[in-house]
Amino acid sequence: MWLNGEEVPFEDNPRAMRCLKALQRLALAKGESLKFPLEWKLHIVSRNNFPTAAGLASSAAGYACLVYTLATLYGIQDEELTAIARQGSGSACRSLHGGFVHWHKGEASDGSDSIALPVVTSAHWPNMHVLILVVNDSRKKTSSTKGMQRAVETSDLIKYRAKQCVPQRIQAITEAIKQRDFETFANITMQDSNQFHAIALDTFPPCVYMNDVSHAIVSFVHAFNAAVGHIRVAYTFDAGPNACLYVLKEHVPSVLQAIHTSFPNDAAGSVEYVKGIPIDGTASPSSTPTTADAILNGNFTLPTNERNLLKYIIHTKVGLGPQRLTKTDSLLNPSTGLPY
Amino acid sequence: MWLNGEEVPFEDNPRAMRCLKALQRLALAKGESLKFPLEWKLHIVSRNNFPTAAGLASSAAGYACLVYTLATLYGIQDEELTAIARQGSGSACRSLHGGFVHWHKGEASDGSDSIALPVVTSAHWPNMHVLILVVNDSRKKTSSTKGMQRAVETSDLIKYRAKQCVPQRIQAITEAIKQRDFETFANITMQDSNQFHAIALDTFPPCVYMNDVSHAIVSFVHAFNAAVGHIRVAYTFDAGPNACLYVLKEHVPSVLQAIHTSFPNDAAGSVEYVKGIPIDGTASPSSTPTTADAILNGNFTLPTNERNLLKYIIHTKVGLGPQRLTKTDSLLNPSTGLPY
Repeated sequence: MWLNGEEVPFEDNPRAMRCLKALQRLALAKGESLKFPLEWKLHIVSRNNFPTAAGLASSAAGYACLVYTLATLYGIQDEELTAIARQGSGSACRSLHGGFVHWHKGEASDGSDSIALPVVTSAHWPNMHVLILVVNDSRKKTSSTKGMQRAVETSDLIKYRAKQCVPQRIQAITEAIKQRDFETFANITMQDSNQFHAIALDTFPPCVYMNDVSHAIVSFVHAFNAAVGHIRVAYTFDAGPNACLYVLKEHVPSVLQAIHTSFPNDAAGSVEYVKGIPIDGTASPSSTPTTADAILNGNFTLPTNERNLLKYIIHTKVGLGPQRLTKTDSLLNPSTGLPY
Repeated sequence: MWLNGEEVPFEDNPRAMRCLKALQRLALAKGESLKFPLEWKLHIVSRNNFPTAAGLASSAAGYACLVYTLATLYGIQDEELTAIARQGSGSACRSLHGGFVHWHKGEASDGSDSIALPVVTSAHWPNMHVLILVVNDSRKKTSSTKGMQRAVETSDLIKYRAKQCVPQRIQAITEAIKQRDFETFANITMQDSNQFHAIALDTFPPCVYMNDVSHAIVSFVHAFNAAVGHIRVAYTFDAGPNACLYVLKEHVPSVLQAIHTSFPNDAAGSVEYVKGIPIDGTASPSSTPTTADAILNGNFTLPTNERNLLKYIIHTKVGLGPQRLTKTDSLLNPSTGLPY
């Protein structure tokens, strides 16, 4: 098995082995075991263009890709695979579907009914874009799986969150997504991110995933929204310091310009600094005035931070889920010639 | 009114005015208004040797001092004054008593029965010492009063904390203090500090008082305790980034040496770096080996942080509460000739 250019014996990865065995059992049960004989050896090459172990769900993407690809090989790609993907990485179950996905907690004690189901496809809200702000951080990480286990064992507040807060929010945000109601979606997203990190802090010893730069991004988002007078940007932080900002496509240039103003960066002019979906010219730091400048000239000012707090920015959008590419498909961005 | 060498018109401080008026009403009701006629003008000079507006309860100390001194002037120092002090700064009600104090939340909607009562005097646990680590921080502060208001309005988790967690913990920590059970006291103190900051984060927009250095101190404390195999140090953070560490007197030298190791500081040799109660020679960074060195030579290592993350350290202990000094009393530390 090749992971990002490094050879890793498959047997040394018990989580990947668990997924493989579960898929082989399913193939056998479905009578599909002859499509690709189970005793045949596998040569797996994995390549990732996303930061790994940075709390950006790279393991979710990796295990979703592995499970989908093996399932396709064994001819069982139309089966319910999310419970199998969850054995690789909890959140991998969400990544098997495109668009917006609801991970149901289920009731069974063995977790067998804890599956992910699509809410709407990515085509439902095509202008829902994402800016990922990757921050510089050197602290020792707590793995999200270990952190969650410790939270369940030691946090008093998690009980209330799981029973009272989460079910209400799931219902409200699902409705907001269906209605394409950005402001409601944004407020719930931010409040729930904060509450997740509150629970991490209530864990003993505490788990701290956000750092001072993460909190500076939070302050920036609240200041930006207050300045505009609308909720234009929402932040969410997973088990790491990097921010995931939701922004509608039409507001990406002005938000990005405000980010350049509030988080000045020596690399801001470089093609490597803002990766992913190309942004039209008005978003470069040296461009013509936009909303962000108007804000700065008004009664509101955005916080100004030290230089170079961000490593780089990824511009992306809600995706399609795992795809089988044909030989003519390309993983390269046609406008830059670089991988997406 | 002189505050730390700066003249402030008393009328410009509505909270101080509220305390004064309440004390004058009480003096009138008690028939003590003739001891110092209420219509006489007051010249108040206040001096503070503690960092202000740093989340170290300096306003609590200030208002407790003001209320106690005015009450003494008006001859009502033996009345219940904590509800009056609370009108200056919420936590000032606690600072009117020495030793360990319980601030009762009360039931009345006007807060009139929200008073502080002593648990035990400082003589009950004389070796309970405190190391305050003052950290460098330049962020804009959220006042603790405003932060608390916003938490009550926007946090879902605060309801559960107030109803379920706090009453249990108050009972358990009161018992631990009475029994001088340091480990139980320490665990509750740390868990409750973390939960307070979890609630601050669950507030919307979130209140963030701790910074990366605060969290590095938390990691240090957990690592130190794990290395020693006992809970020797407890942290608590108020509405700011500075740490208040509880340590029994006999462990202060070894803990301080471990702090010097984990938080190296160019000023560590200076008399200005560790202020307050003098520490015997073994605690200086260049001294003979202590427990801290033994730890570093064992299986455990303490985290090593960047240099100069701490501004200075204050060594103090549980105090007596407000005192009226006679002319022969001195505010100077006899061993250094400097103010405490």
